[in-house]
Amino acid sequence: MKKLKRSERLVDMTQYLLSEPHTLIPLTTFAERYGSAKSSISEDLTIIKEVFENDGIGELNTLAGAAGGVKYIPKLRNDHALSFAEELCRKLQQTDRILPGGYLYMSDLLGEPSLMNEAGKIFATAFADREIDVVMTVETKGIPLAYATAAQLNLPVVLVRRDHQVTEGSAVSINYVSGSHKSIHTMSLSRRALKEHSRVLIVDDFMKAGGTIQGMMDLLVEFNAEVAGVGVLLESGAVESEERLLQNYTSLARLSDVDSKSKTITVSPGNYFEK
Amino acid sequence: MKKLKRSERLVDMTQYLLSEPHTLIPLTTFAERYGSAKSSISEDLTIIKEVFENDGIGELNTLAGAAGGVKYIPKLRNDHALSFAEELCRKLQQTDRILPGGYLYMSDLLGEPSLMNEAGKIFATAFADREIDVVMTVETKGIPLAYATAAQLNLPVVLVRRDHQVTEGSAVSINYVSGSHKSIHTMSLSRRALKEHSRVLIVDDFMKAGGTIQGMMDLLVEFNAEVAGVGVLLESGAVESEERLLQNYTSLARLSDVDSKSKTITVSPGNYFEK
Repeated sequence: MKKLKRSERLVDMTQYLLSEPHTLIPLTTFAERYGSAKSSISEDLTIIKEVFENDGIGELNTLAGAAGGVKYIPKLRNDHALSFAEELCRKLQQTDRILPGGYLYMSDLLGEPSLMNEAGKIFATAFADREIDVVMTVETKGIPLAYATAAQLNLPVVLVRRDHQVTEGSAVSINYVSGSHKSIHTMSLSRRALKEHSRVLIVDDFMKAGGTIQGMMDLLVEFNAEVAGVGVLLESGAVESEERLLQNYTSLARLSDVDSKSKTITVSPGNYFEK
Repeated sequence: MKKLKRSERLVDMTQYLLSEPHTLIPLTTFAERYGSAKSSISEDLTIIKEVFENDGIGELNTLAGAAGGVKYIPKLRNDHALSFAEELCRKLQQTDRILPGGYLYMSDLLGEPSLMNEAGKIFATAFADREIDVVMTVETKGIPLAYATAAQLNLPVVLVRRDHQVTEGSAVSINYVSGSHKSIHTMSLSRRALKEHSRVLIVDDFMKAGGTIQGMMDLLVEFNAEVAGVGVLLESGAVESEERLLQNYTSLARLSDVDSKSKTITVSPGNYFEK
């Protein structure tokens, strides 16, 4: 790359850092990329750091020393996260979402990459300091959220299937009981998909009593893996506390009521905002 | 926002533009955001444009006049795209991917958000000038690729299901014949998911004879919608040309052979690189 001016360096470094979150970039990488002194690179990083902090989009952590460098940690500031959650609640409360049986149509919202990316940034903020090796979800609707979260945390995604697939090779299958309907389902994970002792962040779009997530946790036991955290976009608050299968999770929104008769849906920001 | 210096503006504008691809941003948005004159904003944009072009990550298109502004069009330069495809081929050729029946394990690659994002950028480049309303895929493995593509094109994703789901509301189901095995399958799309006359970009991870994609095309007819393009990550070249159900598609890689006996897999860059 030809020698760049500061103004050009700032643009290039910004796009470089944003495209490599949670990745330690040695200052020499930038120094060589631009043919600049490390001291100039450090000054550039100070400017970028300040703008990122003012924008509320994340931190630049600088590690000194020979193994040092800079790492961009995406963090969505709490007021931005809350605005997002309130907007999500407003959308979820649109009365035409009510389906027969009191189900809520939300595939249109899950189909918006920008919404999923914002939610992914909030999970990346919530779990930024955990030690995590992989993000896990079960097909189908939690997938975009899992990828959005994993992209921000620079982690791979492991996908649990409902059936055993020929393209997954040998797999471990378990049965689990969905907490609210007490019906029995199967889920399956390829043997190659997850290393032993992995630390796993479980992400899903919706949680009622938590049976599906409990199923994923049971599957982790089969792989000698551990739960590092649980994040759900929407939890149902209409669950008796003795029915709830897990206590330790982060939700972005809480559905407290779907009334098919009066056509009202009640959604409020989730427990992420209660700390 | 407080008045920013040029250096700070450049950092902020870069992150703003990158987070809003294929979106027209009026210059007044930036002028008000920074308390700067439009002439200064124009100078800033010239710098950013040049760096983006040198980096090979996309174009800044400036539209003059009252309804004018600036639009970031992500475009991955061809040499970068080819390096990506060659790297993908190298990974796909790892012999331990061969599964019983000559299937290829590729879930680990589909589980890498950074790979999916690169592939999504190539599709966004290939289809940048098409008129598209929505990106469509069928569950499960094409989902991350569809979202990565849609995010770059600033479009929503519509997800075709294998079964009819209670959370999707009323749906249209069709049967389709998988081209290579001649077996009959069902796919289903929620009535609310797709507006009439939508122009649809179909994205999937793997295409053999094209039966699944032909199925999605048949489904589009039911919605009076149109195909705007077809993109697949990996196509199988081991299909007789009379068996192939569609001719018009873009592939990033081509699998020509999986030999279970000699344990060799042969993959080369796809037809995207043949123009």
